[in-house]
Amino acid sequence: MSFSPLIRQLIDALRTLPGVGQKTAQRMALQLLERDRSGGSRLALALTQAMDGVGHCRLCRTLTEDDLCPQCADVRRDDTLLCVVEGPMDVYAVEQTGYRGRYFVLKGHLSPLDGLGPEAIGIPQLMTRIAEQGTFAEVILATNPTVEGEATAHYIAQLLSNKGLIASRIAHGVPLGGELELVDGGTLAHSFSGRRPITL
Amino acid sequence: MSFSPLIRQLIDALRTLPGVGQKTAQRMALQLLERDRSGGSRLALALTQAMDGVGHCRLCRTLTEDDLCPQCADVRRDDTLLCVVEGPMDVYAVEQTGYRGRYFVLKGHLSPLDGLGPEAIGIPQLMTRIAEQGTFAEVILATNPTVEGEATAHYIAQLLSNKGLIASRIAHGVPLGGELELVDGGTLAHSFSGRRPITL
Repeated sequence: MSFSPLIRQLIDALRTLPGVGQKTAQRMALQLLERDRSGGSRLALALTQAMDGVGHCRLCRTLTEDDLCPQCADVRRDDTLLCVVEGPMDVYAVEQTGYRGRYFVLKGHLSPLDGLGPEAIGIPQLMTRIAEQGTFAEVILATNPTVEGEATAHYIAQLLSNKGLIASRIAHGVPLGGELELVDGGTLAHSFSGRRPITL
Repeated sequence: MSFSPLIRQLIDALRTLPGVGQKTAQRMALQLLERDRSGGSRLALALTQAMDGVGHCRLCRTLTEDDLCPQCADVRRDDTLLCVVEGPMDVYAVEQTGYRGRYFVLKGHLSPLDGLGPEAIGIPQLMTRIAEQGTFAEVILATNPTVEGEATAHYIAQLLSNKGLIASRIAHGVPLGGELELVDGGTLAHSFSGRRPITL
């Protein structure tokens, strides 16, 4: 297995991509070299421009190359609603729900074992953002439904509780299209305790 | 779902990689931007250098940035054996077997429906290579065990038959570690017709 140095360097670099191991990186490298050199050059240019150019939105801290991201720059959005998420990917997930309020992007979740406290994930900036904006009536805590995400949501909810703001948590329950017998007990318990009357 | 232009450009460029769809490309782009900017820049550099610098080996036509690939430049290899494969990836696969002869890399396989005849995949260059080298005693046809790969192997074998060279085909049979009941009938038939006496 002796690749020439430039090819070996490309394979190693491709392995930095999430979910790409040695075999996949080899296939990617050789496919680009054999069949799509222009695609490879285009990818190199896009990477350089993005790594150098993309920073964080001044208000919500999601990824963008502008001062404000498209969501924060849009004046038609609801300034009374703020949605707190763990990362930029979550913004795009929540956008699909039709939510049209504002966002704040944390740097992950609280994780004391990894030394990630409130400052590390940006909770002070979140409180400053809420205070400076002054128009938010409800803060939707859309951190992940994991132990750390729940803890982060509860921590923020406690900070918000004495500011007259509604802190809400996204509902846990059975996912659409699933089958009850395949849903874990914890989720099913949440879906029972969160049951709602049917409105006809 | 509104990504800023540079991020959208990066996501589109990542989709040129084999096996990467929209969702995976998004995850890759945001992960690089959030967690590994230096890795992203390193990948951009490696891509640029490889796309500009890597060409084909003068003798075997595999991918390399040098005049000769490591396999062709190695003087200790057996000059009586030539292994013909469909692409550069196959060279690295065959190397794992311990084979230490020479290689010739075709540009895929014969595919008349796609307009790929002997010239398109480099069979004339293969014959020139064999004639110029003059030392090969056996040509191992290691094209893929597909209909097109078999046809390509048979076509080359016919060309070689009146040159006093042995043209051999890699064996078809049951793969190691598999179970007989899961092997398809065609493969099992090959493994029966290719059976060999057990040497104790």
